[in-house]
Amino acid sequence: MYRDKTLGVIAGAGPFAGNNLIQKILEQTEAFVDQDHLTIIGWFQPNTILDRTEFLLGNWQDNPGYAIAAQALALEKAGAEVIAIPCNTAHAPPIFNVIQSELNHAGAGALFLNMIEETAAFIREQFPDINILGVLSTTGAYRTRLYPYFLENSGIEVVSLGEDIQNTLIHTAIYDPDYGIKAIGKAHPRARQQLLEGIKHLVSQGAEAIIMGCSEIPLAFPESEVEGIPLIDPTLALARALIHHASPDKLKPWLASGKQPDTPPPS
Amino acid sequence: MYRDKTLGVIAGAGPFAGNNLIQKILEQTEAFVDQDHLTIIGWFQPNTILDRTEFLLGNWQDNPGYAIAAQALALEKAGAEVIAIPCNTAHAPPIFNVIQSELNHAGAGALFLNMIEETAAFIREQFPDINILGVLSTTGAYRTRLYPYFLENSGIEVVSLGEDIQNTLIHTAIYDPDYGIKAIGKAHPRARQQLLEGIKHLVSQGAEAIIMGCSEIPLAFPESEVEGIPLIDPTLALARALIHHASPDKLKPWLASGKQPDTPPPS
Repeated sequence: MYRDKTLGVIAGAGPFAGNNLIQKILEQTEAFVDQDHLTIIGWFQPNTILDRTEFLLGNWQDNPGYAIAAQALALEKAGAEVIAIPCNTAHAPPIFNVIQSELNHAGAGALFLNMIEETAAFIREQFPDINILGVLSTTGAYRTRLYPYFLENSGIEVVSLGEDIQNTLIHTAIYDPDYGIKAIGKAHPRARQQLLEGIKHLVSQGAEAIIMGCSEIPLAFPESEVEGIPLIDPTLALARALIHHASPDKLKPWLASGKQPDTPPPS
Repeated sequence: MYRDKTLGVIAGAGPFAGNNLIQKILEQTEAFVDQDHLTIIGWFQPNTILDRTEFLLGNWQDNPGYAIAAQALALEKAGAEVIAIPCNTAHAPPIFNVIQSELNHAGAGALFLNMIEETAAFIREQFPDINILGVLSTTGAYRTRLYPYFLENSGIEVVSLGEDIQNTLIHTAIYDPDYGIKAIGKAHPRARQQLLEGIKHLVSQGAEAIIMGCSEIPLAFPESEVEGIPLIDPTLALARALIHHASPDKLKPWLASGKQPDTPPPS
């Protein structure tokens, strides 16, 4: 007998982004009453997952992939059958390869989705006419050329920021302890302004759409486009992929959901 | 050695409200980096928890308290030490007594907080000068006089709506399959308007503050007051109680958090 699969979300990297993925799973599910929604286990355990960017930059030695794999196994033990982590940077090969080898070694049976592959598939499907994409990301994903790597055989050219802009505008918008998105969980005007400057630089390099390639960035930009340039949200792509794997009939049609107004403020 | 306790959230009743509780736990936690946040397991399994109001109205025989207790035990098995369910109506004694007796019978060791008791404590602490409170709730909580019961020894008078207004304005704002908060997860203008009418009725009966006594209602009213009348959010009270039990040093001061602007739209 067919039944819906149980979803598992490794939600602590970072926690506001984890909450945002669960929110998007709920929003993208066809449901009229509580009981229509899928079973999701949200595992928020940030203290054991060291910062992904610090590891990729060589500042810390401990690979966060081990803790992520351990949490995936805890999720599987609790019943999860399709698992993902809404952290783009955790998909850089030096980390993601460790996650995969640890899960293989442990004989994990759950399916572990790859957020970047799902985003690349989403782009090919929903934005087939785009030739040049701009990427906003952490410095860890930037240095490891995460999106260029996954999009290199797609025929899409990926443009990135210069390293000075990456460090002064984008890294701080995500990580600053006073106004960064990780610290306050939403859009401080300064973080938003800095990311907007980054977007403008990418557009000036020819970008026709922007990948918000760090899962904190959609918390500052919930809208689906800015000044006519589409904003591509990997968290939304991952939410839809998770629903598709758990219960394809419950996935909202993309056109309908794409036409929904962007989280309007209360009137 | 002292360590933070792991929180468990029974998040499927309803799921948007469950995710809102987790969001409020994150917002009320003193944290500057991902790793500062508490460990939270969010258990979204709505399909086994039948509607609380339908049971309380006698329309369905199965008491949802059994499924809620089973999910609490699953959370404890996964590591949760302090557990709560952000559903006011599930705290009506016919349901909550079953949860408690099931957990006692199973020898559960985790602490299960009572959302309504925590809200009553929050009101005594933060709103000591209020004499008359108005309550918005589901019809299940309304019929079982949930808030009047928990506040009866507090010296606070509780005013409620007439049954016609309860049925036509409040129940539909929560449950309508087209515009109700449970169906769309946020504030449809019609749901918000109906709840606002309910608030005005309560104010005309002398209410000095309003308890948003169904966990979907704060999704439509994120602001802390409306037309000068404080809106008391039991989900926020529960979030703060959970942090207090898990790691008191990480609870943000109330005055500071109370002064934060109400979830502003992106500028």
